[in-house]
Amino acid sequence: MFHVPPVSREFDAAIRRAIDAKTKPLGALGALETAAAQVARIQGTLTPTLRRCRLTLFAADHGISKEGVSAYPQAVTRQMVANFLDGGAAANVFARTNGVELQVVDAGVAGEPMEAPGLISKRIAAGTRNFVVEPAMTAEQCETALSTGDTLGAGVAADVAAFGEMGIGNTSSATMVAHKITGRGLDSLVGRGAGLDDAGLARKREILQGAARRTPERLDAPDALREYGGFEMVMMAGAMAGAARAGAVVLVDGFIAGVAALAAAQMAPALRDYLVFAHRSAEHGHGVVLAALDARPLLDLELRLGEGTGALLAWPVLRCAAAMLSEMASFESAGVSGPV
Amino acid sequence: MFHVPPVSREFDAAIRRAIDAKTKPLGALGALETAAAQVARIQGTLTPTLRRCRLTLFAADHGISKEGVSAYPQAVTRQMVANFLDGGAAANVFARTNGVELQVVDAGVAGEPMEAPGLISKRIAAGTRNFVVEPAMTAEQCETALSTGDTLGAGVAADVAAFGEMGIGNTSSATMVAHKITGRGLDSLVGRGAGLDDAGLARKREILQGAARRTPERLDAPDALREYGGFEMVMMAGAMAGAARAGAVVLVDGFIAGVAALAAAQMAPALRDYLVFAHRSAEHGHGVVLAALDARPLLDLELRLGEGTGALLAWPVLRCAAAMLSEMASFESAGVSGPV
Repeated sequence: MFHVPPVSREFDAAIRRAIDAKTKPLGALGALETAAAQVARIQGTLTPTLRRCRLTLFAADHGISKEGVSAYPQAVTRQMVANFLDGGAAANVFARTNGVELQVVDAGVAGEPMEAPGLISKRIAAGTRNFVVEPAMTAEQCETALSTGDTLGAGVAADVAAFGEMGIGNTSSATMVAHKITGRGLDSLVGRGAGLDDAGLARKREILQGAARRTPERLDAPDALREYGGFEMVMMAGAMAGAARAGAVVLVDGFIAGVAALAAAQMAPALRDYLVFAHRSAEHGHGVVLAALDARPLLDLELRLGEGTGALLAWPVLRCAAAMLSEMASFESAGVSGPV
Repeated sequence: MFHVPPVSREFDAAIRRAIDAKTKPLGALGALETAAAQVARIQGTLTPTLRRCRLTLFAADHGISKEGVSAYPQAVTRQMVANFLDGGAAANVFARTNGVELQVVDAGVAGEPMEAPGLISKRIAAGTRNFVVEPAMTAEQCETALSTGDTLGAGVAADVAAFGEMGIGNTSSATMVAHKITGRGLDSLVGRGAGLDDAGLARKREILQGAARRTPERLDAPDALREYGGFEMVMMAGAMAGAARAGAVVLVDGFIAGVAALAAAQMAPALRDYLVFAHRSAEHGHGVVLAALDARPLLDLELRLGEGTGALLAWPVLRCAAAMLSEMASFESAGVSGPV
């Protein structure tokens, strides 16, 4: 598990030449040129194609939510899973509009197992434990979530594997994982999540500071995930590795997905080259996570919803980037003069 | 001509309530919420729909190009029109990928009239005059370009009218128009265009400073267009007004289109409410133009190509924004709990 083959750099010069030969000023397509080169590298071709994108949406609950760290009650996780299955959430709307297939995975929603047509049930438990007082999950649960995700990711059967999440309390969980992996201070990471006010934010910060004291200052990714993670984010980390191994471009959504990517890339460093970052979230800590990954996201739309919504919006941009390289005429083929 | 009816603000509160009732934290869809509200206001409905986007690409040549202000020879304008008609340019690739119809207008390409299937010939002249020594066009030419554009825009028959341009030398022309309309210094506006080096940039700045001295410090939009504009940008300004009058959302591309919008909105202030700004261009002066319009673009991808490429990339985002308002479930309809 967690083997990701390195991407070949052999064709980098040829990719650069192909992009520079297109009928446009050098570098004039900015971030799309970078993305096109990355997709070409992953697919090992000068004519990359992105036909199919699938969003896998992992949902799970968090023991920490009983500490009152979220603006919304825990029940919302389960209610939103039903909303996803009914097609009424933002993720559904964006997926339909942009032609993305969406699948929903119960990675550990609180309460009885949900039974609904279309729901992929991979529950590890009915939510994690409260990481203020004990590890969020056992080592076995963490392993199972990773390997379950890996298998799901490897089977995604799309050119682009996008991942999203739902889980009340999961900005707290992701904040802790990022804190322990990067060593960056909690103040630079703790944010308002789904919409805490100033008092709520202060309370969240205090609770997380307490939880941080329970373990050593820094933790490796597997320990950070086990101590503070959530089943949706651990399963997503595994799925990213699996999808990359299967040759897919991995489209990373916002803060939670960014932390999953951070953990996964620490466990399998070659994964980094498969990751395209969809957007810069308005959630406070996302900048720290992006910096730790040396990532420059495609979009900045002040989103802070999760559900993979940023990834769904970035998919057409990424698709255009690949099409640019595959389909645009060259100065030579179009008979267009170069610079004077 | 240039009558644009004001957009009604009557439903603004209802639109805000509808967006806030959707199953997402308040404000969590950031810039998409603003865009959705704007589209709803333009269409006068709480369930806006964006089914069809058409990009009109205006091409024209510029007398100023003989001063050596561009990295590319004038012939490239005509060669790129052929490339557009052959489907090989970036605009074609993005339009195909994102399902946008594209039409190409010869507004005044240098040389003999081009005859090609699919080309809409609305040539004012074989390029403008050199604005260093004389007005770029006559008052009659400016009027004709505006009214021709207005008619084209009014007939665009799409929910979203996007506009792009091609014209070697046109960042110089747009820079001058913006300089005379806004009064902002040339240093904050002159940029590298299609890729000038430092020496070329210094030369461009010097030439434009000379050209600026030929006329009063500030000019109204019609005079600025006549003195320094290009046929593609004047026709585009007219088309924006025509499209808005026909009820379309006007999707504004980058620097050149931004200057056309600036001029058009000065002539018809109600136009401003119909304008959605696609992206922040890497061209130096675009920030000044956006600030003058109090505009916050959807994307920032370091593009500096023109051709409407930024608008083509923004279309799916705008479409998702409208679909969010029309299709997303509310907390009530989906049975999802609100904040605690």
